[in-house]
Amino acid sequence: MKNTFGSAVSLTIFGESHGPAVGAVLDGLAAGLPVDEEYIALRMERRRARGDGLSTARVEPDRVEILSGVLNGHTTGTPITFVIRNTNTRSGDYAKTADLLRPGHADFTAYAKYEGFQDARGGGHFSGRITAASVAAGAVCEKILEEKGIRCYTHIARCAGIDDAPLSSAAGQFPQDPEPGHFALLDPAKEAPMMAAIRAAGEQGDSVGGILETVITGVPAGIGEPFFDSVESELAHLAFSIPAVKGIEFGHGFALADLRGSQANDPFTMREGRIVTATNKNGGVNGGIANGMPIVFRTVIKPTASIYREQNTVDYVSKKDAVLSIKGRHDPCIVARAAVVQNTLAAFGILDLLTVRYGTLGQKK
Amino acid sequence: MKNTFGSAVSLTIFGESHGPAVGAVLDGLAAGLPVDEEYIALRMERRRARGDGLSTARVEPDRVEILSGVLNGHTTGTPITFVIRNTNTRSGDYAKTADLLRPGHADFTAYAKYEGFQDARGGGHFSGRITAASVAAGAVCEKILEEKGIRCYTHIARCAGIDDAPLSSAAGQFPQDPEPGHFALLDPAKEAPMMAAIRAAGEQGDSVGGILETVITGVPAGIGEPFFDSVESELAHLAFSIPAVKGIEFGHGFALADLRGSQANDPFTMREGRIVTATNKNGGVNGGIANGMPIVFRTVIKPTASIYREQNTVDYVSKKDAVLSIKGRHDPCIVARAAVVQNTLAAFGILDLLTVRYGTLGQKK
Amino acid sequence: MKNTFGSAVSLTIFGESHGPAVGAVLDGLAAGLPVDEEYIALRMERRRARGDGLSTARVEPDRVEILSGVLNGHTTGTPITFVIRNTNTRSGDYAKTADLLRPGHADFTAYAKYEGFQDARGGGHFSGRITAASVAAGAVCEKILEEKGIRCYTHIARCAGIDDAPLSSAAGQFPQDPEPGHFALLDPAKEAPMMAAIRAAGEQGDSVGGILETVITGVPAGIGEPFFDSVESELAHLAFSIPAVKGIEFGHGFALADLRGSQANDPFTMREGRIVTATNKNGGVNGGIANGMPIVFRTVIKPTASIYREQNTVDYVSKKDAVLSIKGRHDPCIVARAAVVQNTLAAFGILDLLTVRYGTLGQKK
Amino acid sequence: MKNTFGSAVSLTIFGESHGPAVGAVLDGLAAGLPVDEEYIALRMERRRARGDGLSTARVEPDRVEILSGVLNGHTTGTPITFVIRNTNTRSGDYAKTADLLRPGHADFTAYAKYEGFQDARGGGHFSGRITAASVAAGAVCEKILEEKGIRCYTHIARCAGIDDAPLSSAAGQFPQDPEPGHFALLDPAKEAPMMAAIRAAGEQGDSVGGILETVITGVPAGIGEPFFDSVESELAHLAFSIPAVKGIEFGHGFALADLRGSQANDPFTMREGRIVTATNKNGGVNGGIANGMPIVFRTVIKPTASIYREQNTVDYVSKKDAVLSIKGRHDPCIVARAAVVQNTLAAFGILDLLTVRYGTLGQKK
Repeated sequence: MKNTFGSAVSLTIFGESHGPAVGAVLDGLAAGLPVDEEYIALRMERRRARGDGLSTARVEPDRVEILSGVLNGHTTGTPITFVIRNTNTRSGDYAKTADLLRPGHADFTAYAKYEGFQDARGGGHFSGRITAASVAAGAVCEKILEEKGIRCYTHIARCAGIDDAPLSSAAGQFPQDPEPGHFALLDPAKEAPMMAAIRAAGEQGDSVGGILETVITGVPAGIGEPFFDSVESELAHLAFSIPAVKGIEFGHGFALADLRGSQANDPFTMREGRIVTATNKNGGVNGGIANGMPIVFRTVIKPTASIYREQNTVDYVSKKDAVLSIKGRHDPCIVARAAVVQNTLAAFGILDLLTVRYGTLGQKK
Repeated sequence: MKNTFGSAVSLTIFGESHGPAVGAVLDGLAAGLPVDEEYIALRMERRRARGDGLSTARVEPDRVEILSGVLNGHTTGTPITFVIRNTNTRSGDYAKTADLLRPGHADFTAYAKYEGFQDARGGGHFSGRITAASVAAGAVCEKILEEKGIRCYTHIARCAGIDDAPLSSAAGQFPQDPEPGHFALLDPAKEAPMMAAIRAAGEQGDSVGGILETVITGVPAGIGEPFFDSVESELAHLAFSIPAVKGIEFGHGFALADLRGSQANDPFTMREGRIVTATNKNGGVNGGIANGMPIVFRTVIKPTASIYREQNTVDYVSKKDAVLSIKGRHDPCIVARAAVVQNTLAAFGILDLLTVRYGTLGQKK
Repeated sequence: MKNTFGSAVSLTIFGESHGPAVGAVLDGLAAGLPVDEEYIALRMERRRARGDGLSTARVEPDRVEILSGVLNGHTTGTPITFVIRNTNTRSGDYAKTADLLRPGHADFTAYAKYEGFQDARGGGHFSGRITAASVAAGAVCEKILEEKGIRCYTHIARCAGIDDAPLSSAAGQFPQDPEPGHFALLDPAKEAPMMAAIRAAGEQGDSVGGILETVITGVPAGIGEPFFDSVESELAHLAFSIPAVKGIEFGHGFALADLRGSQANDPFTMREGRIVTATNKNGGVNGGIANGMPIVFRTVIKPTASIYREQNTVDYVSKKDAVLSIKGRHDPCIVARAAVVQNTLAAFGILDLLTVRYGTLGQKK
Repeated sequence: MKNTFGSAVSLTIFGESHGPAVGAVLDGLAAGLPVDEEYIALRMERRRARGDGLSTARVEPDRVEILSGVLNGHTTGTPITFVIRNTNTRSGDYAKTADLLRPGHADFTAYAKYEGFQDARGGGHFSGRITAASVAAGAVCEKILEEKGIRCYTHIARCAGIDDAPLSSAAGQFPQDPEPGHFALLDPAKEAPMMAAIRAAGEQGDSVGGILETVITGVPAGIGEPFFDSVESELAHLAFSIPAVKGIEFGHGFALADLRGSQANDPFTMREGRIVTATNKNGGVNGGIANGMPIVFRTVIKPTASIYREQNTVDYVSKKDAVLSIKGRHDPCIVARAAVVQNTLAAFGILDLLTVRYGTLGQKK
């Protein structure tokens, strides 16, 4: 299904950037699970643009209204619907350049696919804004997982040419979420230079990309399926639904190409009565199935397609070459905001796989 | 669904390495499309092990029997079932070490998931052998796409530390498939050193990995969906169902992290009356939807988990640390064989997305 | 998926009777198809309760807000979201009897399934009110089908012991929809006695059921699938999602049990250059696939479960036998309102099957 | 998906009547569940034609080969594949009349759908023979349910104008399956007249239909979903995939149309500490969800379409009216054979819903 994904738990997303609202329907949860609206608001706050030179000047409160499926702070077991109204829309910014295809964007593919009937205002259904509702839905999943001892954390592994500290530096304690306005970094000292580099690119009318790294701890061995519904297939399917993600790798990922088997295999060993692996180069997944070690994956976020520099392009209507100068309000870097989306979608994916295995009965406390 | 994937066209796979057979059911094709059993046999031949020091000594004829859905060389429109009998099985090789978890393999996760009831012989359902049937199914898809002017080609971009020529070197002509026993390389001169490096690793009881690159030309702009069923989500979902794939990237992939937007955006331009992009750093996909340029993606294949060196591990039954020496017949490198699997699954994925868009009526010639 | 159905076009429903809203997401439509909000309002008006002794005194305006997927009166090709706010809720009516399981209702099964976390107010997710949003979605489908020459009509074949005229009496012209406040009947003379019989039952604190008959004309031969996605399976799956439907039959249905093959087979014959059947005892479906004749099916609607008479039941909390007197506002008969739901869901089902076959490209005018 | 159905457990069917084989893939089962090949053979034997004037003279051994997913008499947790070779095919019988559309059959719809590429021999994919493999798959499900205390039984409620005893007559003990060659009847005295009536119709070159009734006991309250995946939707979807089924009703079904609410509601009462209903007019389902009472449904089986009498029809190629005299070997009545198919598919459906709710972990003994 086109805008619905999941096996036992499903997520449906809808909305356009400049339409009345964006939203999501989260279905298939067990009844009696906690829904913490304050936590959802915190997640929305982290995804939200701040107009601070790091993200777009389109600042909206992103208040989430829950239309169904929640009563007295718990899931009822029926579909949960999240709606976020669009308030601060300035479609006029787009009018003048509407026929000029923005490079790196979906303008041309939207024309090709929707034959001219797409809602092109502000990127329409292709806007990163659509991810707001999936963050609300995924925030519910994060909290449910947390009660089961499963935690998801995503940090900015690299951005604007600056690396965060490696994940190994966090061993022994689970990283804390950043305060609003701050970046999710293992080494807080990297924040100032990273922000400076982003602002510098923005001031040049340009944009930067980066790499996100997600770690999920506490996942019981045995979830996921050997082939099409592997943990990796499920998480990759979801990750590529985030606009701007162009690659994903698990464990040591592309670096495995240059290792030998004797280096890439994670030896098993007993630790405190449990079977664990001594290393985790396979990122917590063997044969598509979680092995109980932290699930680790990295995605690449391409630099924001909307830049203020002049770009060569085509006028779709006249079918002639043209030069485009973008107006509108855009992020010089979406890596920090995408981190929240990636983390919440990963939580959704893991909860889906858990529910396939354990069913919906008796999940409540 | 666990072993079934696809929206309009679906693929179901089944089988165990040492059971009676492996197979696949391909459903949802239009009626009247060509099914070329000779071409299927060629594809099987390319995936087949050869016992030549480059792949496992378990050599089987891999004859594909079609049980349904084909009549007079054409699809009937009903499910096509492919069965490949297992003939050369030597389960005895595994008996002695059955309780010792092979590092990098699914032994432990299979125990965790199937609670001891898995068919562990030869890797059971986790064996690369299961991919044989999906090659047969995907070969049918390749031929159907070819009639529509869509071609898929996968080469070994890197293996055992040796790079093939870049894709750009093939511009202007579509690469030819290699002869049996040869590698899919854009620069044939790379074959001898690559094979030598693989054999060297094998002689040391070790294994190597590599990187596959797939290019799909002729895909019409407009297929794929904005979010969950993006071209990237579909192809990644399928790629991660190939054992040993641990990462995938589209276009310039992870390298996009260090580009600026002005470098990463592909400018549109008119060429012979068509809208094209001057570069293809986004790998033929914008906003999840094909833009008509070649779809390009790369996957990393980890080094074969089965190696002959001693490895530290755990005895699952006694729950004690142990040392494992693997017997059995294994590939020092599966990159060349995986290339066929990746190519055929990609063809399946594209045909699925095409069928979502164009339906099943009137596809025949 | 639990609250999502469809292959190429999908429908997701959500909401609770006394929650903030009920709604639906309709996804998978081609772009450029007409969306007529006035027609949707007409359909909502027909499903709406009127407080006239024939339906519940809970009268609400049922204004449909479209949150996404529509621009300038046409589909954009992305998900269409319909939301209908709940305004006239009086949960207090239910408080006193909340632990007493209402016979014929889902109170007990909701307890069993949701472990006490269900939203029980006004029937929650089990209320017939949830169907309001599917009517909005199905109304869009009806209009799209109409442009393709496909029409759906549902009349009350029998209600409160009174039969409408047989479908054959309408041959030659497609029946008209009734005016608001009137019943969908082929013979208008049956309306007065039918309404009188319903009111009589209601005045006795009781309720009545009936039979709906739907006819769909203009469906091209060839849609539907031989087995699991037969026209009959799809329409039955949808029909049983309407609360109170307990049976469905196609063509001559249960009466076929007593016919011989020579009587039940519909002979083919040429008519105006087209292959048709001389009779239509199979209801327009052979082997699961539409044969081009009108698709005809009938469903039975059980009498409304909510009645004002005293009923024996169980107190769920004390687990003791008890006697229930229902308050609240309920319909003595929902057959007339269910007719709209059935017709719109049938339109959705047919549009789904059409889209599987013809795809989404080029459906627009 | 076209030939695949199910949420947590899925069934894929394939094959043509005169192709190499028919078969099925059953996926999603927990590991460690029993697979009793003798029981499967018994079920196949019951579905099998006997050439005794009651069923077709095409008698085949129907040996089921299991290609995957079973080891040492237990499920491994991976897909189970069943293959039944076609042995006794006489396609020549069909050659002469191949262009004459058989009334009541799928010949015309197959032409319309598959554009002439269908395998028309012996009905191809539309033959009742395709159900053989789903019987094998469903027999596995029956046995798994039996270990959980859930039993499915289907009897011939009516055939050739003769009624079996009502289900109520079996209260207190679960009916026994009939011996091979006998009918599933609650009152064995009805067998002789029923068989005689069938033979009489067959001798006149005609055929008869009937009604099947299925009862499923031991289903725990709480399985099924409120709307699209209701118990009724799931079982109806499956029932209509059986060729010749044209109607289904739950509990008192169509008779509910003429009851009042006070008669149709099943009062709850305590019995031995459990909540039960005093009557079961709703057939064990309230609001789409099982209430713990026996699930009861009835389907109508139309008379076999293949009859030996002359029938008016159309020549598909010349597009002219014609007269058809059918050769081939056909059943004068398929009700008794369909009973096995219905029972096994119902078992599959219930197991699917159970697995959605309870997951796959820890189902084994």
